[in-house]
Amino acid sequence: MSQSEIAAVNRKFESAARNGDLDGLASLYTVDAMALPPDGPIVKGRESIKQMWGSVAQQLGLKEVRLNTLSFEQEGNTGYEVGEATLTLASGTAVMKFVVVWKKVDGQWRLHRDIWNSKGA
Amino acid sequence: MSQSEIAAVNRKFESAARNGDLDGLASLYTVDAMALPPDGPIVKGRESIKQMWGSVAQQLGLKEVRLNTLSFEQEGNTGYEVGEATLTLASGTAVMKFVVVWKKVDGQWRLHRDIWNSKGA
Repeated sequence: MSQSEIAAVNRKFESAARNGDLDGLASLYTVDAMALPPDGPIVKGRESIKQMWGSVAQQLGLKEVRLNTLSFEQEGNTGYEVGEATLTLASGTAVMKFVVVWKKVDGQWRLHRDIWNSKGA
Repeated sequence: MSQSEIAAVNRKFESAARNGDLDGLASLYTVDAMALPPDGPIVKGRESIKQMWGSVAQQLGLKEVRLNTLSFEQEGNTGYEVGEATLTLASGTAVMKFVVVWKKVDGQWRLHRDIWNSKGA
């Protein structure tokens, strides 16, 4: 039932993004997570990821994120998801595709690796 | 010793890229692999990935790829790597960061999910 657990975390992610809740967003990641946003360096650790999302929210005017899981596979406490994210920005809508590596830590699935890029036109 | 096995596959990847060996490149992926190049749709399956690399090689004048593993973690037959790829192109050098999910199939580690984006300036 891990896929439903991950779907639940994705709904929390969407809620936190909609509410501008950066602490909430960051708490969904493992403490030693890495995020790889386009056109920038690798962002390591929950606190740095929180700051990264703050910058993205501010610079792009992020209003909403919708996550759509296209594929999920799992082995033990490791899962990996391929999906699409639709971002509502001040400038309009952007569609990203992503890979998230999920890790179950203390019974809770968290984002452990998070990388995305543009789906293009 | 999986990290050394993955390093060996990465060296094969570099050789195949240098030699323009698209069949060789594609053979390093699982049959049901997904590649997520920037600014385009998700590429599914070994044959489509071969064509994708052919397009990249042609359009960008890809001469060489150097892969540098920054992090590798593993659980069972699933591994995930974070790294940097330095591409030598007709126009110069581009540095990408990537996440690869590796899967061990029939005793051989193969790229199963492959996504990258620009490291920026």
